[in-house]
Amino acid sequence: MLVAFQGEKGAYSESAAKHYFSSKNIEPVACKTFYDVFKAVSGKKADSAMVPVENTLNGGIREVFNLLDQMSVCAAGEIKLKISHSLLALPGTKLSDIRKVYSHPQALLQCRKFIHDQRLTKIEFYDTAGAAKYVSECKDPSIAAIASEAAADDYGLVVLRRHLETDGNNFTRFLALSNEYTVQKDADKTTVVFSLRNQPGALHKILSVFAIRDIDLLSIDSIPIIGKPWEYKFFVDFQGSILSEKQSNAINHLREICPHVKVIGSYKSGRTII
Amino acid sequence: MLVAFQGEKGAYSESAAKHYFSSKNIEPVACKTFYDVFKAVSGKKADSAMVPVENTLNGGIREVFNLLDQMSVCAAGEIKLKISHSLLALPGTKLSDIRKVYSHPQALLQCRKFIHDQRLTKIEFYDTAGAAKYVSECKDPSIAAIASEAAADDYGLVVLRRHLETDGNNFTRFLALSNEYTVQKDADKTTVVFSLRNQPGALHKILSVFAIRDIDLLSIDSIPIIGKPWEYKFFVDFQGSILSEKQSNAINHLREICPHVKVIGSYKSGRTII
Repeated sequence: MLVAFQGEKGAYSESAAKHYFSSKNIEPVACKTFYDVFKAVSGKKADSAMVPVENTLNGGIREVFNLLDQMSVCAAGEIKLKISHSLLALPGTKLSDIRKVYSHPQALLQCRKFIHDQRLTKIEFYDTAGAAKYVSECKDPSIAAIASEAAADDYGLVVLRRHLETDGNNFTRFLALSNEYTVQKDADKTTVVFSLRNQPGALHKILSVFAIRDIDLLSIDSIPIIGKPWEYKFFVDFQGSILSEKQSNAINHLREICPHVKVIGSYKSGRTII
Repeated sequence: MLVAFQGEKGAYSESAAKHYFSSKNIEPVACKTFYDVFKAVSGKKADSAMVPVENTLNGGIREVFNLLDQMSVCAAGEIKLKISHSLLALPGTKLSDIRKVYSHPQALLQCRKFIHDQRLTKIEFYDTAGAAKYVSECKDPSIAAIASEAAADDYGLVVLRRHLETDGNNFTRFLALSNEYTVQKDADKTTVVFSLRNQPGALHKILSVFAIRDIDLLSIDSIPIIGKPWEYKFFVDFQGSILSEKQSNAINHLREICPHVKVIGSYKSGRTII
């Protein structure tokens, strides 16, 4: 089973994929960008993919939201991972040697206090594990990567410092993607995206669709609509499966009043890996 | 009048400040981080500040939202600026010489298609004008900055290419901050942040506060609450001034049902500078 993820070997998404598909033999397919991940699944070059959608420190990942709306893929499952970042460098290096730190922008944000306190220059890299790989290849003792402890093993680096994140409550929620629209019987959560007509009270009206049916909203994110300044689309997670009558009626009701509705998927709420 | 902004001379925020305070003599105060900008205003080291809150391609700027909630400042006004990015390099350089491009993460995101098509390596800088300054100091003909055309004049660089942004509908909305809580008579818009009790239908109930009073919502953004995984606070812009009875009643109603409410400010909707 081929599972696409963004980043190099050792990325958090790969780790999430290994936990999610624990019982199966998976072959991870490393992709450079999120767009490449989605294209691999929609074009059936991968059987599934694992993508991050939200982090408890930085919020929703808007690039992934946009791709979930635009590409022909379906959310088929979920898993949550506790994220703990480590500072990785060449063997023999000390923390005081380090001047520059390489990592993914989200990881740099999550460790901004550490980076600021140590007066390090931060350099954006397309993923955390890729930064670890780069540090292992550069042979420069003044640079380090912020990545998972697992990536140290993958690239022959040492861990100079653990738990760099500003806040210990650092979890990322991932979705498993599929190129076939399937809903398992144990699905208990649905993700939908919709846009509003531009009229007063439009969002309140839409949320009534859920409230009058006692369907609990789990999260709501607004994303700008590209090309229509100051207009937004909304990503909503709500309780229950699209196979249930109440939820299915709610979606039909949404289609009556929204110019655009797409059900991203119904799936079982993910467990949390600590 | 001292006006703080994030970035170096030539930053978009400085340009927004100049347009906003057009009739007054302002002295821009460049700050390295958004936190420094807020601290300058709350500590009365600056009379005002100009901060970006939202971009029509990338959405709300969560770091600024969090500071608006946490720091003792008030939103006193608004202005919108059309953003157009240029590629700036040393005089005598050609586009084909360029290998690396330096800019603020938001600007790099907005020009990702250009950067990808030209196969440039992107390097994150704390602001666009700072990147232009760095390029002017480095004397390396293989590097360029993405910044405003104005920054080329400020740092003696040439414009290799204009309008790099992926989408022409690229506007940023800025707020003018004050350390005194004042509401002008012509205010027609209010920004408020609140959190919800963790119960079904909570968001729908809150939006009813506005709907039953026919108060139009202009935007809503959810931001994770740091330290409380999977809980959110909401930033809402709505029509009308807090000095009006309807809006003032709505805020009192919010305080009845939300554990946390803060009025960020009431101010006049900003004009758009093209």
